[in-house]
Amino acid sequence: MYEGVVQDLIDELGRLPGVGPKSAQRIAFHILQAESTDVRRLARALTEVKEKVRFCAECGNVAQEERCRVCLDPRRDLSVICVVEEPKDVVAIERTREFRGRYHVLGGAISPIDGVGPGDLRIRELLARLSDGAVTELILATDPNLEGEATATYLARMVGSLGLRVTRLASGLPVGGDLEYADEVTLGRAFEGRRLLDV
Amino acid sequence: MYEGVVQDLIDELGRLPGVGPKSAQRIAFHILQAESTDVRRLARALTEVKEKVRFCAECGNVAQEERCRVCLDPRRDLSVICVVEEPKDVVAIERTREFRGRYHVLGGAISPIDGVGPGDLRIRELLARLSDGAVTELILATDPNLEGEATATYLARMVGSLGLRVTRLASGLPVGGDLEYADEVTLGRAFEGRRLLDV
Repeated sequence: MYEGVVQDLIDELGRLPGVGPKSAQRIAFHILQAESTDVRRLARALTEVKEKVRFCAECGNVAQEERCRVCLDPRRDLSVICVVEEPKDVVAIERTREFRGRYHVLGGAISPIDGVGPGDLRIRELLARLSDGAVTELILATDPNLEGEATATYLARMVGSLGLRVTRLASGLPVGGDLEYADEVTLGRAFEGRRLLDV
Repeated sequence: MYEGVVQDLIDELGRLPGVGPKSAQRIAFHILQAESTDVRRLARALTEVKEKVRFCAECGNVAQEERCRVCLDPRRDLSVICVVEEPKDVVAIERTREFRGRYHVLGGAISPIDGVGPGDLRIRELLARLSDGAVTELILATDPNLEGEATATYLARMVGSLGLRVTRLASGLPVGGDLEYADEVTLGRAFEGRRLLDV
């Protein structure tokens, strides 16, 4: 339908997550009319990320050095490790400024449907980090869905004999949300996890 | 928040139309995990479109040669020109397979708010194409909004003395839509433009 190179670009853009055919077309026409220097900068950002980004040898987070920024930071608490599925979860938690420990990025969650078993995740690396006894708390912050719960349960059992404090992030109503719009599972969890108010 | 090159990519992606911060982050992490060859292909598609695409010397449509595919096609009807705002409108109309004439791409619509006047559009080029008398019908297919209507009215007046048949695409209810969801202006236009059924 389009001239060859325009169609090529639309096809390539359409492979990105969350970019449908209409958005791909819209972005392609934006590119057509954009400044060449801006387009070259985007193209370079794409290839640089592949060339320069690697994964932290310690925790598996995204890194530009051998270790990531969190692992390199001497002010972080070495006694707590927060286990997450993906590097973007690290960013989400960092944004809260609630957590001062370090992370361990599993690289996914156990999902038999997708053929992901415990051996495909960075669990051996996690056990190695726990072996010297410096870590006293393990926070399991995998996603609050089926795969994330299964992974958390699996990990809790794996580390059961190490005498660690193993915790899981609270499930409940999203802050700022409407109770009536909460799904029944979330609402059920919010009841289960209800806290006593100091009055 | 992110390692430098990842944040650079998120920033660049966030400048694309319809890509918010969340999508930019999602696409960036997809890129991080994608095959290097796929990412290089996307980067190349972006720069190639800027290097190879130009605009048809005849109609202003997107082209890889001096003239676009429509203008180069000897089977197209030379007596009809369909005037559109943007190259993507050409694609939308081509998809209907209803139109066998040629196009004229204005490069936008008259919009005083955006500082776009008639002099910023390819109107002089349109008048030049009409000067030899070969064209007998001009279809004004600018968008059915304020700017598109203003542009169509302006063009209709400009070519008024040339003795052409000047038409405008019909406005009305979208096919497959629900009458109750139509806005009042569209519904009003559908009444105005009602057709007599042959029964």
